[in-house]
Amino acid sequence: MPKPRARDLGIPFEGTPGPCNAITDVSGVTVGYATVIEGHSARTGVAVIHPRGSKDHDPVFAGTFAFNGNGEMTGAAWVDEGGLLEGPIGLTNTHSVGVVRDTIIAWEIKNKAIFQKWTLPVVAETADGWLNEMNGFHVKEQHVWSALDSATSGKIEEGNIGGGTGMICYEYKGGMGTSSRKLPVKLGGWTVGVLAQCNFGRRYQLTIAGVPVGQHLKEDAPFTSGENMLQQDDGSLIAIIATDAPLLPHQLKRLAKRASLGMARTGSMGGNGSGDIFLAFSTANPGAARGDKDGLSTLKALSNEHIDPLFSASVLATEEAIINSMVAAEDMTGHRKLKIKSLPHEKLKDVLRMYNRLKEQEENR
Amino acid sequence: MPKPRARDLGIPFEGTPGPCNAITDVSGVTVGYATVIEGHSARTGVAVIHPRGSKDHDPVFAGTFAFNGNGEMTGAAWVDEGGLLEGPIGLTNTHSVGVVRDTIIAWEIKNKAIFQKWTLPVVAETADGWLNEMNGFHVKEQHVWSALDSATSGKIEEGNIGGGTGMICYEYKGGMGTSSRKLPVKLGGWTVGVLAQCNFGRRYQLTIAGVPVGQHLKEDAPFTSGENMLQQDDGSLIAIIATDAPLLPHQLKRLAKRASLGMARTGSMGGNGSGDIFLAFSTANPGAARGDKDGLSTLKALSNEHIDPLFSASVLATEEAIINSMVAAEDMTGHRKLKIKSLPHEKLKDVLRMYNRLKEQEENR
Amino acid sequence: MPKPRARDLGIPFEGTPGPCNAITDVSGVTVGYATVIEGHSARTGVAVIHPRGSKDHDPVFAGTFAFNGNGEMTGAAWVDEGGLLEGPIGLTNTHSVGVVRDTIIAWEIKNKAIFQKWTLPVVAETADGWLNEMNGFHVKEQHVWSALDSATSGKIEEGNIGGGTGMICYEYKGGMGTSSRKLPVKLGGWTVGVLAQCNFGRRYQLTIAGVPVGQHLKEDAPFTSGENMLQQDDGSLIAIIATDAPLLPHQLKRLAKRASLGMARTGSMGGNGSGDIFLAFSTANPGAARGDKDGLSTLKALSNEHIDPLFSASVLATEEAIINSMVAAEDMTGHRKLKIKSLPHEKLKDVLRMYNRLKEQEENR
Amino acid sequence: MPKPRARDLGIPFEGTPGPCNAITDVSGVTVGYATVIEGHSARTGVAVIHPRGSKDHDPVFAGTFAFNGNGEMTGAAWVDEGGLLEGPIGLTNTHSVGVVRDTIIAWEIKNKAIFQKWTLPVVAETADGWLNEMNGFHVKEQHVWSALDSATSGKIEEGNIGGGTGMICYEYKGGMGTSSRKLPVKLGGWTVGVLAQCNFGRRYQLTIAGVPVGQHLKEDAPFTSGENMLQQDDGSLIAIIATDAPLLPHQLKRLAKRASLGMARTGSMGGNGSGDIFLAFSTANPGAARGDKDGLSTLKALSNEHIDPLFSASVLATEEAIINSMVAAEDMTGHRKLKIKSLPHEKLKDVLRMYNRLKEQEENR
Repeated sequence: MPKPRARDLGIPFEGTPGPCNAITDVSGVTVGYATVIEGHSARTGVAVIHPRGSKDHDPVFAGTFAFNGNGEMTGAAWVDEGGLLEGPIGLTNTHSVGVVRDTIIAWEIKNKAIFQKWTLPVVAETADGWLNEMNGFHVKEQHVWSALDSATSGKIEEGNIGGGTGMICYEYKGGMGTSSRKLPVKLGGWTVGVLAQCNFGRRYQLTIAGVPVGQHLKEDAPFTSGENMLQQDDGSLIAIIATDAPLLPHQLKRLAKRASLGMARTGSMGGNGSGDIFLAFSTANPGAARGDKDGLSTLKALSNEHIDPLFSASVLATEEAIINSMVAAEDMTGHRKLKIKSLPHEKLKDVLRMYNRLKEQEENR
Repeated sequence: MPKPRARDLGIPFEGTPGPCNAITDVSGVTVGYATVIEGHSARTGVAVIHPRGSKDHDPVFAGTFAFNGNGEMTGAAWVDEGGLLEGPIGLTNTHSVGVVRDTIIAWEIKNKAIFQKWTLPVVAETADGWLNEMNGFHVKEQHVWSALDSATSGKIEEGNIGGGTGMICYEYKGGMGTSSRKLPVKLGGWTVGVLAQCNFGRRYQLTIAGVPVGQHLKEDAPFTSGENMLQQDDGSLIAIIATDAPLLPHQLKRLAKRASLGMARTGSMGGNGSGDIFLAFSTANPGAARGDKDGLSTLKALSNEHIDPLFSASVLATEEAIINSMVAAEDMTGHRKLKIKSLPHEKLKDVLRMYNRLKEQEENR
Repeated sequence: MPKPRARDLGIPFEGTPGPCNAITDVSGVTVGYATVIEGHSARTGVAVIHPRGSKDHDPVFAGTFAFNGNGEMTGAAWVDEGGLLEGPIGLTNTHSVGVVRDTIIAWEIKNKAIFQKWTLPVVAETADGWLNEMNGFHVKEQHVWSALDSATSGKIEEGNIGGGTGMICYEYKGGMGTSSRKLPVKLGGWTVGVLAQCNFGRRYQLTIAGVPVGQHLKEDAPFTSGENMLQQDDGSLIAIIATDAPLLPHQLKRLAKRASLGMARTGSMGGNGSGDIFLAFSTANPGAARGDKDGLSTLKALSNEHIDPLFSASVLATEEAIINSMVAAEDMTGHRKLKIKSLPHEKLKDVLRMYNRLKEQEENR
Repeated sequence: MPKPRARDLGIPFEGTPGPCNAITDVSGVTVGYATVIEGHSARTGVAVIHPRGSKDHDPVFAGTFAFNGNGEMTGAAWVDEGGLLEGPIGLTNTHSVGVVRDTIIAWEIKNKAIFQKWTLPVVAETADGWLNEMNGFHVKEQHVWSALDSATSGKIEEGNIGGGTGMICYEYKGGMGTSSRKLPVKLGGWTVGVLAQCNFGRRYQLTIAGVPVGQHLKEDAPFTSGENMLQQDDGSLIAIIATDAPLLPHQLKRLAKRASLGMARTGSMGGNGSGDIFLAFSTANPGAARGDKDGLSTLKALSNEHIDPLFSASVLATEEAIINSMVAAEDMTGHRKLKIKSLPHEKLKDVLRMYNRLKEQEENR
């Protein structure tokens, strides 16, 4: 029996997802993971996204947004300047960004995937230093190669996997989460997918479908008990948004901004310690980066006045990806024996029920 | 009997407001309004904020953030470059920004309030062209003078007043709204206040205290009925955040960013047509702009690691200011006989009650 | 006999200009001026640029850059967010931005030129408060209408005209200047044109064709004599770059950035008091803003790897436009009887000759 | 006999340098190098800057600016968000950024130098893939440790050293260069120092002291001969600006921007392929990052109106640092036997003399 996802629990999310309710619903996108769980202290990993799959190295239009830049997204300067994402994206822990970045370069060399004469890989991170011995540098080159070479389309895993292995979200176990939205044909029929690495938030903030869940589920919240209540939020959220809508780079930056609103819907204030950095890319317009011998290409584009459904989809898929990460994650004991519980499904349903927000009830209303 | 505010209805907002639950809880800040309601078509006005009151022209540290820049905030370039807000802020309708800006200059000349050899006033706007004949340019110089000279501290009005006179929010009557948060002493004891001009959102998005209110209150929503459902969100939100916490300009930009999250908590996706532009200023550190004869000054500053409570206060006061604007606003018939209803208090309470989110109930839970 | 331009004096600029060596070499672009010289104190005006001429209201792709944001460019938030310049650009003095902005709206209403349901005109400024009684608000609505309605293609005037009427540049009389570059066919054959309103710089900084002119021509420098030497640079540079190359908004922001380098080549350090704000637009891709009924359009685009010649053209045309403004400007006596001399052509040639940089000599080298 | 520096050749730079004419003139700043020259193909290395020396881990205020973001500066998101540079800066080749970044983390762990619970090191790069086998990943962890532990104050080396080992500038051999300016006491007496890794520019652009040197010295320009003339500029400039002036983060961003103008003075147009990314930090205000137990600190600050001399110093020291890198660099043969010549001192003097810009002549003028 597969693990339930957030929708399966009856959480009433808005909008219609694609077939896998995953970033991979955007045609061409593949995702790979390497999970590093070793001994008592290694609880980490790496995730990768190939915008056009691992065989097609044609750059995609992209844009980034740092809501709270207490984090790293290498390569963001060129994405913003040139409007291009020229290779796979890596997601890992804060102290392993370098090895993931350089190994992506090595992979690109081997796969003849470098678009310019050099490459500036996009690697983002969140800090897993509570469950993982982050100073132990447990992500190795082979993990990055493995994630890059094992990427798949279709259904992808969530929770304690890849870059999300050791992450903590609203003081429950966090990790990787994904979701998508498929727009109706009259709104363009485009797909928007999100992959999020979720590692942020204080329990008392946790909001699901508008319900102040965190004000009821106060147990097993190691960072806000007693005097710690006032401690800053030390986490981070990385969200990668993919779409097949033909958006230009400046419009993709606008999509990336909307991830902030999806984050807000789960309760976060974007704490000082949180590196909330987002990137959106479009798989439309193949060949645009190079153009013909004179550098000219012919593009499809979408007017700003038709972009609102894509904004909504980005907000909603980010929100659901975050909750999905928590629903999928499982209890973990890690570095220094810290134990982090997963979101208790039944208790969550009880709280939603208390507020008449569990879907079984809504149907009867 | 004074008009009820959102809290009076039992909406369960988080955090503790200051004594007036208004931007004027930040010591020194004054707010003035001029409301222009004339004949069948003029439904507009202007609001002003004096950061240190109308007599003290000492600049304040400030920062801005455009979540969705389909709007205007004149003067933002210098706020961002120089870190200084050097005079009063004006809020009006989109097509009257110019007259407000130039009249603020005239007022500054008369009041010997120009800090540099020129002045670059901050004037922001939202579009009231549905209820107001925006192309009629009904805001005149005398309205601006009146708002500037009548500014007060203490309790301030909300709803159909000043720049908010003709605004529409989630397809109910919108307008001016304000709120504040007073931090506990152990978190610094600082005050954060917000003044918002609210003119955005589609009804189906409207969320209050996490409750999907707009999915129940579908009547009197002129822009999303029938085929219009898919029409873009044409509104805008301007939020001005004041604080007495000694934040530096780059930190105030961070506060301004948090207004986006407050907006998200009311349901908006930040539509393409929405000019969602925010500014935060600090009344701390008088004299810092000029310094001594060598330009040197001594400042108080707050570390990033103590800024989270100010982030939360900014999010929460923005959220509440938006709902306050709607609770205070009253039905209006305007240009071309368009009628916009105000948020029906009792029906709202019914919906909140349905989700066990009305405060009377919470206490019994 | 027409006034000589900078090239006519033998200043050795790089690159090949278009037929008029003006922004109007970009097909479709028209420029209009209204000059306000009245009594002893009014020395000001307004200039306008219609990106596609005054009859065609189709938006153009655009991007902005504030090198030093001590200035105003209204409308920049939407240009940056939406990538569109939706109407004419106005250039005037600092304290008249409002009247120019609102009057452009009135003009757009009359000419049915508003693209969205509101309009956010782009109006930029430099401060002419030394020669002009800037606090007298001498730019009136009729001047703006006049500039808008009188715009022409072809050769345009420079110096003490339009928004440049009362401007001062490197302590010589400044004003409006223009220049263009026409790329060879093998580099795409595109045209880049610049219109600059020049009001910045200290004399000792003045550099022309690399020659430290300001270190020789020290007379008639009212702001840097004696103790004033250390006074800050209070001016500003506004540069508008037009091109027919099919650049996307994020690429046009890159072009706008290059105006900084053109400015640097004339010696400026970008002083604190200088509002150095730039905008670039492309007349390519008509109809892209609207698209078809589904918002879709087909665009031409140019790869980043073919953009260098456009960068060079932007730098060089900005540099030459600045020097052109000074070469064309004439002595002016203004407000409070301040007299500002124009750049003395023969003395300038002497200095260039001293450094073997006058073109007559170069040919013999 | 020490190698001559640019001033020693008689190039007439403006302004007065500090005692070492180096970034290390800013008290506390130390610089370390590791140079990797091995076999036929390894021509690379790493440079590091400790803002307060290698023993003092107190963060400094900082700001960044990407003039042309075709490059990497990890950690920039946090510098811009938080205003703090929390550790040493690394400079290396494009494909070695990761190893330098992660090794800086390891060094910080060992030296108990991590300010937050994680660290986001600043590592910037330029591409040395012409002289160096950049895909060979020749920078190893031990090189980074060596650079970090060997950093010194006082005179520092320039040219083919550290991160600059294999760099090419205006098609001459480039590399590391440094310069400083010491302001007169009446302008504050502050010091500004620059360290630049120089790897950009086409020969025909090369400008020294305003003289179009590159139009005369056309030999040994491997990238612009014949048909290559139109090839894009593939280089990059990284400039790090240090000062002891008490500037706030938003002001340091302004300083960083001025590096663009220094770059422009050497002739560059900021080509598409060039990653021109700058960072400025201030060693003033020790302890400000942490504050007292309530996060409060007392800062010194400088008004914007006194910042112009620091802007000039940043421009001029960047310009001179670039030329210094070329004057110090020596001929190199590298990967695939490519030979790059160094700037020929005597020929350069001849060209400057031709334009009466060699300093020996100026004195007689």
